[in-house]
Amino acid sequence: MLEAIKAAADKNLRLYPDPEAASLCSAIANYYGLASEQVFVGNGSDEVLAFAFQAFFSPGKTIVFPDITYTFYPVYCQFYDIPYREIPLTEYFNLPVQEFCGDYAGVVLANPNAPTGKSVPVCKIRTVLEGNPNCVVLVDEAYVDFGGDSAVSLVDSYKNLLVVKTMSKSRSLAGLRVGYAMGDADLIAGLNCVKNSFNSYTVDRLALVGAEASLRDEAYYRAMLAKVSLVRNHTASRLKSMGFCVMESSANFIFISHKRAPARSLYQDLRDRGILVRYFNRPKIDNYLRVTIGTEEEMDTFCKTIQEVLEVNYHEV
Amino acid sequence: MLEAIKAAADKNLRLYPDPEAASLCSAIANYYGLASEQVFVGNGSDEVLAFAFQAFFSPGKTIVFPDITYTFYPVYCQFYDIPYREIPLTEYFNLPVQEFCGDYAGVVLANPNAPTGKSVPVCKIRTVLEGNPNCVVLVDEAYVDFGGDSAVSLVDSYKNLLVVKTMSKSRSLAGLRVGYAMGDADLIAGLNCVKNSFNSYTVDRLALVGAEASLRDEAYYRAMLAKVSLVRNHTASRLKSMGFCVMESSANFIFISHKRAPARSLYQDLRDRGILVRYFNRPKIDNYLRVTIGTEEEMDTFCKTIQEVLEVNYHEV
Repeated sequence: MLEAIKAAADKNLRLYPDPEAASLCSAIANYYGLASEQVFVGNGSDEVLAFAFQAFFSPGKTIVFPDITYTFYPVYCQFYDIPYREIPLTEYFNLPVQEFCGDYAGVVLANPNAPTGKSVPVCKIRTVLEGNPNCVVLVDEAYVDFGGDSAVSLVDSYKNLLVVKTMSKSRSLAGLRVGYAMGDADLIAGLNCVKNSFNSYTVDRLALVGAEASLRDEAYYRAMLAKVSLVRNHTASRLKSMGFCVMESSANFIFISHKRAPARSLYQDLRDRGILVRYFNRPKIDNYLRVTIGTEEEMDTFCKTIQEVLEVNYHEV
Repeated sequence: MLEAIKAAADKNLRLYPDPEAASLCSAIANYYGLASEQVFVGNGSDEVLAFAFQAFFSPGKTIVFPDITYTFYPVYCQFYDIPYREIPLTEYFNLPVQEFCGDYAGVVLANPNAPTGKSVPVCKIRTVLEGNPNCVVLVDEAYVDFGGDSAVSLVDSYKNLLVVKTMSKSRSLAGLRVGYAMGDADLIAGLNCVKNSFNSYTVDRLALVGAEASLRDEAYYRAMLAKVSLVRNHTASRLKSMGFCVMESSANFIFISHKRAPARSLYQDLRDRGILVRYFNRPKIDNYLRVTIGTEEEMDTFCKTIQEVLEVNYHEV
């Protein structure tokens, strides 16, 4: 991938990139067994999500998503004046599938969910699709490659399904800005219509080349995914042995809490020692930390540091 | 610039780019003698324009721009539901400055204008700024470096001025996607607010590095500008000797018409010979062609081809 980018850094940078990203769309389509017309490419999945909210949801028509999920969804709703209702997850952060079947004007689900890392099997996505036959069901699969169950297999069967993915997480290309959506050709045409009213060239030449090269290197990709899963599971085991509750994760992060150490002060203790994790000052999740999986060495440092913090500040009485 | 990009194509591409593009903003600010807080960076000037239309213009409040100008302005208005009025340019495509002084809800001017290539001196921009004290006056300077008069010098004096530029034209970086805006810190904060509700990372790591490297290479930049002007003026002379009317251009393109050869059929004749120029099927400009300046060799081929077409298809009777 790096070699492909270096080779593309030449005088052709004076020319605009292909506004339709045809070559990358075709590569993504081949990878997933779809047609090119079922693929849209954008500047990271955030841009793709923004286009989707604007293309498929409308002022005056209420869409739904879980109360605990990616914090950008309510931002898009406010930005585009789309009313929304947050449906509470169950006590253990599970998706109340039947409550999402209400013939709504739009449904947005992150699978696996953020920041919990919990995933639902694709049969439940199918239930939601059938329970909302008249609207777009947007499934945000930013983290699915780390162990979730992808709904891409349903794209040919459900015209109302839009699956959004990113190259920032499982393909380690956050610095390049490439995200994509897969769905019925009519939905993809809608995304292109919105994009072309905004900015025709959102993905540059080097990002197009890099993303395509990444798709060709399946062996490296699989090896990196396996490594992240291994380090994640190993980290989870070590934390459990320290008394942490670690939520079952299908993502490249874990969501943890400890019965003796409040998350907010633990966050500060770690920060004081140069380790940044995510703390959410929100009801229901304000006693959890989201910890992204780094390298083996980084996670070893993290585990040792948090063990030390527990022993010094939160020892059993 | 190419070396800087190649050096940056490394494992750090796994990390997100700086969402504030602080280093590039600072480089642009230094280049123009502004503060970093007066600079906003986006994914090409089209994205910057889109953010500006959404940030500063509103549904229900009519903005104005010339009837002949960049065709994306009415698209943004429709996209964001902003009413607009097109003020006719004079017979010779000049800006009727006084008609733009009406305390409007927004003014958009391309300077130099597209597709005419005509520019207005900065004193006329000042008149428009003073004639619209309560709204943002957006000056789109995509082509200004090729010979126009920039309003950047007015940024410190007028809080309602936003100057938008791109690296796609004078810096030959269309493939990288970098545009920027310069204006009062409050306007820049408004653009950041819109951007961060849409996509926090619109300019990737390689584009940030490449754009900054380009700003450091002033000698090459000046040489290329001189070359484009030289080839433009030389092409204009040759076309005039063939009987073309060539509008005085301050841009990297020329706007031409011929008394014997209708633009629409000339466009088709050139296309048949493998040369693409822009023809606009619109009132007032439907007998003109916009010809972008390419390399010396390309323009030589263009001149020879159009001369041949004139002799064969449109000879004097």
